Amino acid sequence: MAAFIQSVRFENNTLFILDQTKLPTLKEFLEIDNIKDAWVAIKELKVRGAPAIGIAAAYGLLLGILDAREDSFEAFYNTFIQQKEYLASSRPTAVNLFWALNRMEQRALTDQNLPVAEIKQRLVTEAHAIRDEDEETCRMIGEYALTLFEDGMGVLTHCNAGGIATARYGTALAPIYLAKEKGWNIKVFADETRPLLQGARLTAWELHEAGIDVTLITDNMAAMVMSKGWVQAVIVGCDRVAANGDVANKIGTYGVALLAKAHGIPFYVAAPMSTIDLETATGAEIPIEEREASEIIEGFGKQTAPLDVKVFNPAFDVTPHELITAIITEKGILRAPYEKALAELFQESTESN
Amino acid sequence: MAAFIQSVRFENNTLFILDQTKLPTLKEFLEIDNIKDAWVAIKELKVRGAPAIGIAAAYGLLLGILDAREDSFEAFYNTFIQQKEYLASSRPTAVNLFWALNRMEQRALTDQNLPVAEIKQRLVTEAHAIRDEDEETCRMIGEYALTLFEDGMGVLTHCNAGGIATARYGTALAPIYLAKEKGWNIKVFADETRPLLQGARLTAWELHEAGIDVTLITDNMAAMVMSKGWVQAVIVGCDRVAANGDVANKIGTYGVALLAKAHGIPFYVAAPMSTIDLETATGAEIPIEEREASEIIEGFGKQTAPLDVKVFNPAFDVTPHELITAIITEKGILRAPYEKALAELFQESTESN
Repeated sequence: MAAFIQSVRFENNTLFILDQTKLPTLKEFLEIDNIKDAWVAIKELKVRGAPAIGIAAAYGLLLGILDAREDSFEAFYNTFIQQKEYLASSRPTAVNLFWALNRMEQRALTDQNLPVAEIKQRLVTEAHAIRDEDEETCRMIGEYALTLFEDGMGVLTHCNAGGIATARYGTALAPIYLAKEKGWNIKVFADETRPLLQGARLTAWELHEAGIDVTLITDNMAAMVMSKGWVQAVIVGCDRVAANGDVANKIGTYGVALLAKAHGIPFYVAAPMSTIDLETATGAEIPIEEREASEIIEGFGKQTAPLDVKVFNPAFDVTPHELITAIITEKGILRAPYEKALAELFQESTESN
Repeated sequence: MAAFIQSVRFENNTLFILDQTKLPTLKEFLEIDNIKDAWVAIKELKVRGAPAIGIAAAYGLLLGILDAREDSFEAFYNTFIQQKEYLASSRPTAVNLFWALNRMEQRALTDQNLPVAEIKQRLVTEAHAIRDEDEETCRMIGEYALTLFEDGMGVLTHCNAGGIATARYGTALAPIYLAKEKGWNIKVFADETRPLLQGARLTAWELHEAGIDVTLITDNMAAMVMSKGWVQAVIVGCDRVAANGDVANKIGTYGVALLAKAHGIPFYVAAPMSTIDLETATGAEIPIEEREASEIIEGFGKQTAPLDVKVFNPAFDVTPHELITAIITEKGILRAPYEKALAELFQESTESN
């Protein structure tokens, strides 16, 4: 079996980060031994994917506090907060960055009566737990998704909801990796995903590295690939799931869902619980970021359209719940009516806590 | 009104060709005064679009024969054939190249009893007629298509079936230009059309040059643009129409047709009679060229995917006739059942000849 690529790991007080900005040309790991370099790596998008950013933040914070000389908790906590705020400033819009840093702080506060050396050990354990829990979340999504798959199937995916964006396995790609572990032969079609080409640069790259049968296509080839009968399922990740099951994900997802429906192909969304937002009633309430024209006009360092032409460049679109065959979480598979299924899912997990 | 761009014209024994390989960065015309340079321009794809290639061939042939010193028809015809075969070798798969050159030969043979000087004049007239008839074909397609459009409409198009591929107006873009002449405000959305980006490089460029309201999008944004209610019609060109109305056109067309149907938007195909092939029963019989992986992997002069990843790169797809609201020819608008409508169209035009 091809080696598994761990995009973020912490060993011997060193943070190793796969430099995703170098893909697909180079597979290069940064070796980071101080918090400043961790800050730069997060800032410069060397690490991407919400879970991977959270993990990098937790480990990065360790680099700023493990060598702290303070003996008293108060003095140590003061340094801790300085370092935490510093790292939080690297990417102020990344929700998972704050989530992971706050969780680390919570651990320190909970353990404040222990000796500082012991608190440090607990923080190392906590950072590893953040990583391990993410791997487990992805693995569970993969296990559930795999019950919908069969050996020999063709699966189409869009953008990158893959292993390198998470601790391991990814979300949408988790069943693909688990199928590979089982010895199944899944044939993956990866949309290149213009304008930023995450499908080409990242999905095609990581599946190819893992020895999985992947075929790269441009976004506008998906319909033809489906019409040829090569695709038995579509699976994508998501940015946010609204309370009614509408899903915001990378631009192009909605079109793929329509094409899947037209060909009678099931359309699955892999959604960790952390992406489900019951406060958002429907997809219409999700703000869609519009990005710069230059991503389309000069996306590759080469001008491909008139410089002053009008451009519409939304980063995401919303797939209405009617087009979604199932939403796959780490707690199980949800089917329509989603409003009810999602509400029940959160009720259950609250009750079981 | 912004100037009309004539991509191929012949003036003062000089052939002017818009160098389409320089678009969208530079608007540069080649000034060609000998058949060798015409051969190079066709060979190197400086001129593209079947009608434009035919026109360039007819004019290019003039450059090889107008200075011929032969007085007798036999000697002149000998030179004519040499030059014709030379030019035909520039792009052996371009059907319109042969069509135009054969039409020029036919003119010479028909007029063989005239003095050579007079034959040359007739050949100049014939070359201009090839150009003028193409403009008229495009204008008629535009006039018919315009009856389906309204002032203020949003229109989405794919690839480039535009003015620079023809004598003037283009096929799919003809109603857009005619609407502009009428003072209508049509808002065009141009799919960039991966992998070769004809929509970005050519359609967005020529509409922008003409002062038409055009917005460039990536292919995977078409569904979202439709869902916003911004598009009231889709119009595309075609490579070939089969006897049952199935249409082969640039890859991605089929997907756009499915998206249009899902949003209740009419899907029109602009098809000059020359693209209709009653010998081909259905779209399934149309061979689909598969092109090199490098167009997708290194299409922007920069590597965007692993070099050795599998790629599927079909140049065309087939849109089944059920998805087509109307086929617009220079003889009128056809609607389903297409098998009957197409057969009748050719019967009528045979009878009227």
